[in-house]
Amino acid sequence: MSTRLVLHEDVRSGNCYKIRLTAALLGTRLERRGYDILKGDTRSPDFLAQVNANGRIPVLQVGTRFLPESNAACWYLAEGSALIPEDAFQRADMLRWMFFEQYNHEPNIATLRFWLLYLGEANLSATQRGQIPVKRAAGEEALRVMNEHLAARDWFVGDSVSLADLVLYPYTHVCEAGGFRLQDYPAICRWLDRIAALPGYVAMSA
Amino acid sequence: MSTRLVLHEDVRSGNCYKIRLTAALLGTRLERRGYDILKGDTRSPDFLAQVNANGRIPVLQVGTRFLPESNAACWYLAEGSALIPEDAFQRADMLRWMFFEQYNHEPNIATLRFWLLYLGEANLSATQRGQIPVKRAAGEEALRVMNEHLAARDWFVGDSVSLADLVLYPYTHVCEAGGFRLQDYPAICRWLDRIAALPGYVAMSA
Repeated sequence: MSTRLVLHEDVRSGNCYKIRLTAALLGTRLERRGYDILKGDTRSPDFLAQVNANGRIPVLQVGTRFLPESNAACWYLAEGSALIPEDAFQRADMLRWMFFEQYNHEPNIATLRFWLLYLGEANLSATQRGQIPVKRAAGEEALRVMNEHLAARDWFVGDSVSLADLVLYPYTHVCEAGGFRLQDYPAICRWLDRIAALPGYVAMSA
Repeated sequence: MSTRLVLHEDVRSGNCYKIRLTAALLGTRLERRGYDILKGDTRSPDFLAQVNANGRIPVLQVGTRFLPESNAACWYLAEGSALIPEDAFQRADMLRWMFFEQYNHEPNIATLRFWLLYLGEANLSATQRGQIPVKRAAGEEALRVMNEHLAARDWFVGDSVSLADLVLYPYTHVCEAGGFRLQDYPAICRWLDRIAALPGYVAMSA
């Protein structure tokens, strides 16, 4: 009997979508439990005590254990599959892009989408407003690095899709909601199409 | 004959120290090549073309290939060793703390140290100055999560030291240079002592 897998999520979050997309490509069934981050659902005493003391979703529940951090959850689901390269250097290089995603990409590209699409520019604090140009420039730089890397290759690592592609896809494919323009990055656009054509692909809204 | 390993580094960087510390505990020899990030050494055309298009150190050179991202480099060095847990859930849980380090810890705790110790508060832009209280609060929150986690355990994952400990150690043990107070986090202080007592430990300045 396989272990019960429950995704604690907010459907608007690209970090949660990463895990659903990985599971879909693997044919792995996930139960889903929804939270509203805008209503503070992930800061409740129960959530902090039982699900994640860091107050964030997604969390992948594996039986009675809880695994925070989207990219760690994708790793857990994909271990032993073709989504993680067998070659040791390629495996580390895949993790390199997954750390790049959390450090250079998500805090800029996902945050601007969250601020502009869900909070609304008029509701931002002065400190947040002051960060918009900083995050805009850093997000453009992350997209530039991705576009250059993809100019001569189909996938981020090796010759096939890996978790590096799957964790970079979610916030990239909806980056225009944060004010970025995909047409400026043609190699990224072709890569987005390749991912959407993968067998088992599910949309973010699914 | 083993592959040549060269660490491209700035000795002041905790991200570079992570890799030296991991290699030291494993007994792995690294060649070292120094750069001065304050002088823009990692933004030169040569560096961008040959070492890392993302313009950052550390980069671990493995033969003729280049691996950016400190935590990916630690993973590459440690694969097959006791620094990565054998149990699949624990392995993913280790990665969880490594992603936490890059998302919740480093951008706050390391950045404040860099701004206050190396750039100097008087030289910060208005935008950076506005970020100080934001990064202070987020850094305190990361330290709180770590301190609570360590209250009832010796190591971040399982019963022995793993990469989760080694990548969280460098910027934590020098966090006071960024204005944080270690005495507020007694479980962290005990954990820092455990790491410094590990056989093969090397100091950041070594």
